[in-house]
Amino acid sequence: MSSDELQLSSIHSESDKRPPVVWGCVLSKDHKTYVFKPEDDFLEHLLKLWTICLATEAKDETNVVAAELHHTQGKPITIASLRPSVLPMINVNGLEFSTPVTFTLKSGSGPVYISGIHISLVDDVEDVTPENLF
Amino acid sequence: MSSDELQLSSIHSESDKRPPVVWGCVLSKDHKTYVFKPEDDFLEHLLKLWTICLATEAKDETNVVAAELHHTQGKPITIASLRPSVLPMINVNGLEFSTPVTFTLKSGSGPVYISGIHISLVDDVEDVTPENLF
Amino acid sequence: MSSDELQLSSIHSESDKRPPVVWGCVLSKDHKTYVFKPEDDFLEHLLKLWTICLATEAKDETNVVAAELHHTQGKPITIASLRPSVLPMINVNGLEFSTPVTFTLKSGSGPVYISGIHISLVDDVEDVTPENLF
Amino acid sequence: MSSDELQLSSIHSESDKRPPVVWGCVLSKDHKTYVFKPEDDFLEHLLKLWTICLATEAKDETNVVAAELHHTQGKPITIASLRPSVLPMINVNGLEFSTPVTFTLKSGSGPVYISGIHISLVDDVEDVTPENLF
Amino acid sequence: MSSDELQLSSIHSESDKRPPVVWGCVLSKDHKTYVFKPEDDFLEHLLKLWTICLATEAKDETNVVAAELHHTQGKPITIASLRPSVLPMINVNGLEFSTPVTFTLKSGSGPVYISGIHISLVDDVEDVTPENLF
Repeated sequence: MSSDELQLSSIHSESDKRPPVVWGCVLSKDHKTYVFKPEDDFLEHLLKLWTICLATEAKDETNVVAAELHHTQGKPITIASLRPSVLPMINVNGLEFSTPVTFTLKSGSGPVYISGIHISLVDDVEDVTPENLF
Repeated sequence: MSSDELQLSSIHSESDKRPPVVWGCVLSKDHKTYVFKPEDDFLEHLLKLWTICLATEAKDETNVVAAELHHTQGKPITIASLRPSVLPMINVNGLEFSTPVTFTLKSGSGPVYISGIHISLVDDVEDVTPENLF
Repeated sequence: MSSDELQLSSIHSESDKRPPVVWGCVLSKDHKTYVFKPEDDFLEHLLKLWTICLATEAKDETNVVAAELHHTQGKPITIASLRPSVLPMINVNGLEFSTPVTFTLKSGSGPVYISGIHISLVDDVEDVTPENLF
Repeated sequence: MSSDELQLSSIHSESDKRPPVVWGCVLSKDHKTYVFKPEDDFLEHLLKLWTICLATEAKDETNVVAAELHHTQGKPITIASLRPSVLPMINVNGLEFSTPVTFTLKSGSGPVYISGIHISLVDDVEDVTPENLF
Repeated sequence: MSSDELQLSSIHSESDKRPPVVWGCVLSKDHKTYVFKPEDDFLEHLLKLWTICLATEAKDETNVVAAELHHTQGKPITIASLRPSVLPMINVNGLEFSTPVTFTLKSGSGPVYISGIHISLVDDVEDVTPENLF
């Protein structure tokens, strides 16, 4: 068992899993924040990032992307720093977030594309009471 | 079990697998779209990307590559942003697509080479009825 | 079993694990050192890095980041070398540290953001005596 | 089981494996092609790439590397695009080839170094008849 | 089982493993070679690389790093090509060496920092005779 396996996803059995869904969002001057918050559907949701890319029309300035979760307590975590003339994209495969997660363009005006894969897992059933189901 | 294992490929047993096949395509001004759609052969097909590379003759402009699947609902997901004088290629190992998947050159005129590996899996047999077979 | 599995995290059973926590810190001219030292809580702690990113306001100089652990014996190990005009960030997924670990900005004045995931594991219980517990 | 495991190497049991061997080759103006073809020794051979690097003496031009296998049917697959003043090397860890495989310097004059690891596996014995052995 | 698992480390059972140790070395004009040769302690040793980084004081020239093992037979394998103004560091996670291994600065004068993790495994006991033990 590697530490890769010590992710939230590993507390579920293989039979619980569903096909993952390719996902993307864009951050820009007018939409500096994107909240990934799946429906409250008795599933657990994970978001595993793939790439972060600047758009063709991005100005030559540094674009800084941060992620915020419940447990980061109001302090977004910087995960990328891109600039069109220096580094227009990055492979961030391996970054995996529980949900909800908020992505923010802390610096720059983008547009910045984020891609990844949305994984749904059947949540623990111990709290599922009739009230929850009906 | 890591989240890496929560891919479509993981719903099949090991005995189902076949040797993967190295795959590549090219996007350019005249062929801005490539559809990867294996034959309807009762197998499930996955395409796992390796690298995205600009050709020698690519102009010095930003080339943006996107991927579209059934479930992305008409909104291609940007996965790469390359420019000859800044970043002529990227290792995108870890990006895995169900099929059919369409790759599009959203910006720039390429040529852009995409490489990867095509994995075939025996599909679930529960829906295989005589009508399907004959 | 791959060598990836030969990390500290692998000496624990799957039932011991807890949800990992996204983590970040910043190194700068005024705070050149960050010590990651979890509470003494009978858990074992691992820190797995994700990315190291320069801030927008970083000067155009080389910023060198090093890590020091008990067993590196006073010799910090250089793990990153970034410069705004050349390489403003790096994906260092795969670097995993036991704790406590100290990150130092050996050269440059930053700010440099480090992101990663903090994994907690139930420690070996063999040394847990009443003296330890009370 | 992740799709990483759906490689050729995964059709063999763990007891079959032998220590892997670090491997390298160089492509240049005078040797634009390298064929990796292990001896016919009843083993199956895999070549897993590590890095592709330009030499110090490489001219400032784009160097494009392609790979060709039996099943790519005369169409080499472009896997890298490097230029000394832009991107002198790439980590291509994760690209795995069955053998024989031919690497070609499609553009540029190199020298280009390719490194990786050569893995030998005991081949399936079901087709080993006396005719094969003698 | 993926090919990642077909490393030397995989021929040992999980119970044999010990905590890995973060490791680093530096290559420079005056010390162009570093030999990693653990003590002869009945353990098997693996060195898994993390990053290769140029120091702040590195001149603007190409620095080429190679690795040599017993089985490379006098031909060092080039694994990195870095230049301060183009690419000051690389993540080489995934490169794993048996020991002893020698790292050489083939071109350039550095300093070049190499980081990684040193993994110790209990060696096969079948050859341990009284002569070996006393």
